[in-house]
Amino acid sequence: MSSHPFADTLEPPYVAVIFTSVRTPGDNGYAVMAASMEELARGQPSFLGIESAREDVGITVSYWSDQSAAQGWKRVAAHLVAQRRGREVWYADYRVRVATVEREYGRDTSSLDADR
Amino acid sequence: MSSHPFADTLEPPYVAVIFTSVRTPGDNGYAVMAASMEELARGQPSFLGIESAREDVGITVSYWSDQSAAQGWKRVAAHLVAQRRGREVWYADYRVRVATVEREYGRDTSSLDADR
Repeated sequence: MSSHPFADTLEPPYVAVIFTSVRTPGDNGYAVMAASMEELARGQPSFLGIESAREDVGITVSYWSDQSAAQGWKRVAAHLVAQRRGREVWYADYRVRVATVEREYGRDTSSLDADR
Repeated sequence: MSSHPFADTLEPPYVAVIFTSVRTPGDNGYAVMAASMEELARGQPSFLGIESAREDVGITVSYWSDQSAAQGWKRVAAHLVAQRRGREVWYADYRVRVATVEREYGRDTSSLDADR
């Protein structure tokens, strides 16, 4: 875990891949895979940052400089999961959403109240 | 908590507001606020769904049918937090990102491997 657990301020537009999932019971190699998947993401070109948390639902948002990088990462991740038959073993359900971030506000920009 | 802890399949394009935060120590009324904030979101026009999890970082993604609804919600949320001086009390840091979701894939669509 880095000292900064979320992706630092980025300059829109950039791309967010929002992966939400509900896990199956048991680990079945999931934790090791998740850690190596995150390491792999960090080494990809055009990677900007990643944020992750899990309670009832797991949410991992990865940030990329453009759509083709995001699509490339989605293919790599899907391939790794498929190799280990992870889709059925690890996930009761999931969604992948690919989005373009148009605006970003932070605590220090004091713009949470701003309209844009 | 609903039986379905994440937003069900939606029809892109729609808008995602990605709120990531690091909490300060202690509750200070946060849990009650967070629950009522989620209730309030669910009652807003153009609300599509919400997903939330917290570990080292908290991630809440709310989904809206259009940009103006998302902006409207951001203003309401910011106002509520400001009323209770929550920005300083609850959050060590945060980011708000407003994004347009262009593509969505689910487990049942078997399209995690698809390019689009």
